[in-house]
Amino acid sequence: MIIDIHGHYTTEPQSLFAFRDKQLAGLIDATRKPTTNDLGITDEQLEQSVQRQLAFQKERGSDITIFSPRASGMGHHVGPEWVSQEWTRMNNNLIHRICSLLPENFIGVGQLPQSPGVDPRNCIPELERMVNELGFVGVNLNPDPSGGYWTDPPMTDRYWYPIYEKLVELEIPTMIHVTGSCNPNFHATGAHYINADTTVFMQLIQGNLFKDFPTLKFVIPHGGGAVPYHWGRYRGLSMMMKKPPLVEYLMKNVYFDTCVYHQPGIDLLAKVVPVENILFASEMIGAVQGIDPETGHYFDDTRRYVDAAKNLSDEDRYKIFEGNARTVYPRLDAILKKRGL
Amino acid sequence: MIIDIHGHYTTEPQSLFAFRDKQLAGLIDATRKPTTNDLGITDEQLEQSVQRQLAFQKERGSDITIFSPRASGMGHHVGPEWVSQEWTRMNNNLIHRICSLLPENFIGVGQLPQSPGVDPRNCIPELERMVNELGFVGVNLNPDPSGGYWTDPPMTDRYWYPIYEKLVELEIPTMIHVTGSCNPNFHATGAHYINADTTVFMQLIQGNLFKDFPTLKFVIPHGGGAVPYHWGRYRGLSMMMKKPPLVEYLMKNVYFDTCVYHQPGIDLLAKVVPVENILFASEMIGAVQGIDPETGHYFDDTRRYVDAAKNLSDEDRYKIFEGNARTVYPRLDAILKKRGL
Repeated sequence: MIIDIHGHYTTEPQSLFAFRDKQLAGLIDATRKPTTNDLGITDEQLEQSVQRQLAFQKERGSDITIFSPRASGMGHHVGPEWVSQEWTRMNNNLIHRICSLLPENFIGVGQLPQSPGVDPRNCIPELERMVNELGFVGVNLNPDPSGGYWTDPPMTDRYWYPIYEKLVELEIPTMIHVTGSCNPNFHATGAHYINADTTVFMQLIQGNLFKDFPTLKFVIPHGGGAVPYHWGRYRGLSMMMKKPPLVEYLMKNVYFDTCVYHQPGIDLLAKVVPVENILFASEMIGAVQGIDPETGHYFDDTRRYVDAAKNLSDEDRYKIFEGNARTVYPRLDAILKKRGL
Repeated sequence: MIIDIHGHYTTEPQSLFAFRDKQLAGLIDATRKPTTNDLGITDEQLEQSVQRQLAFQKERGSDITIFSPRASGMGHHVGPEWVSQEWTRMNNNLIHRICSLLPENFIGVGQLPQSPGVDPRNCIPELERMVNELGFVGVNLNPDPSGGYWTDPPMTDRYWYPIYEKLVELEIPTMIHVTGSCNPNFHATGAHYINADTTVFMQLIQGNLFKDFPTLKFVIPHGGGAVPYHWGRYRGLSMMMKKPPLVEYLMKNVYFDTCVYHQPGIDLLAKVVPVENILFASEMIGAVQGIDPETGHYFDDTRRYVDAAKNLSDEDRYKIFEGNARTVYPRLDAILKKRGL
């Protein structure tokens, strides 16, 4: 089976955006506040809204997508904390409804109600709810709730430990994923996302987070940012800092996905990063939605690149497409096993 | 001949650091101000200080290094503007002296007296001085003078235009190079450098800078940050933004260097980026100074990777090692030609 571990709900009904407008307008003019949190979206509308995802699953031959709210929509930097809390619950609820309607196609991952400068402990009730009540198998954690100004501490700081303690307790991994950028220097999907991936990997080299949390698992998306391309730099920096060899030091806890949108990129990833640390993902209908004129196929049809990567064996491909995801997301594995899969 | 276009003076005499301490201490306690800007460094001491660079040139077989002050030392975010002005002049002067003492080994590139939030126009006198008086062939331009908070406008903003006008007039390229980071999220050489490279390339996709400056040349170091690894993403984003094909749109003006410290990285760079846009560089005695246990050679001995890259012809290697540098740095070419080279 083929598990796509990185999908966002990027085809939301308009009424969600209309609510968001009212929610934010209400901060400026209280008379514009939404009168209800009930978006009035029917089950039929929800099913309708993900038809493109279902068609791509069929066409490209993936079976199930780990599905979370639109990353750039999380907007942790927008408005005060209560806005983030309310918005997060609504988005997680929509994911939950879609996963309940189409359990064979989608399995849920949530966003957290983060807010810049606000104690991450405040995210814990929603984290518990999404796992214990909504049945989610993972969560997206934003290393920069400021949206491009990087004003919160590095991910290795004790500031974040309450979240990690809860992740370990709940036995779920976290994908490190920023949201949109309000810093004009950073294009969201072309700079901020990739920079965040690179930044957090380097923080992990500097700190020693997994000494304190040996079972914690970080998924660094977008092929690990710049890291595999600069694998020699990171091996060398790690050595200069007297850390253990990189693979031994971090790669029991850190995983990269395959959201790299051309063959040479996937070839490099598969060459330098241990195959046990690579998880299949496409982030379909996401950052890059067009067809590559050089291949005639969608840029984000990453299955084709993994299939074509020459140095992978069938067993390697099994790990990338399925096996590693079952290890990294034990709650997903349990659900699949219950279904006899 | 082999031109290494990216070297920094990272083996400075201690008296430079002692001056810097006094300069900054003087901001807090005026009695500690340095009493003179004369560091008392003799020519012999300067020659002595670059012996390792000379030995590596010989060992690795490069001929001349384009040499600029230590990048992480520029510290544009440290102290008020006058501190940056004074510090910049001193560092540029040291580079000038080394290049005068060892003209066959080093050719100068300068730093700018940038300061966060300060009009870039204030850098122009030093820019003119370094080219017209010191004989430099290029300049390093910092896209984030704040040192990791990215508070100045994107590089495509008119804010930076006075610098670009002067670069065009002086016929010199600029290397986009941040300095150290005062943001604890960003390790300098492991995150901030690479992020800046990626960020500026994406800014160039978003803007249309080279429409206004068709002859302006940007060198994006460290192999172009994350860009070549995510070449499909950038081609796709460019398409989604209705820009011309990436190579046609940006690659008459943007060049990447070969500071990528392992073979698979250089192989990918040479595969996806037109060979005309790749400049040989090592940043020796820089970010990554150890020996790679996997190869037994220095991580930053990048000539070995370029020599070994399978898909390069002899003509391609000539371009990477020499030809492209002569095109991008016309003042370097003129100097070499004058010497009959």
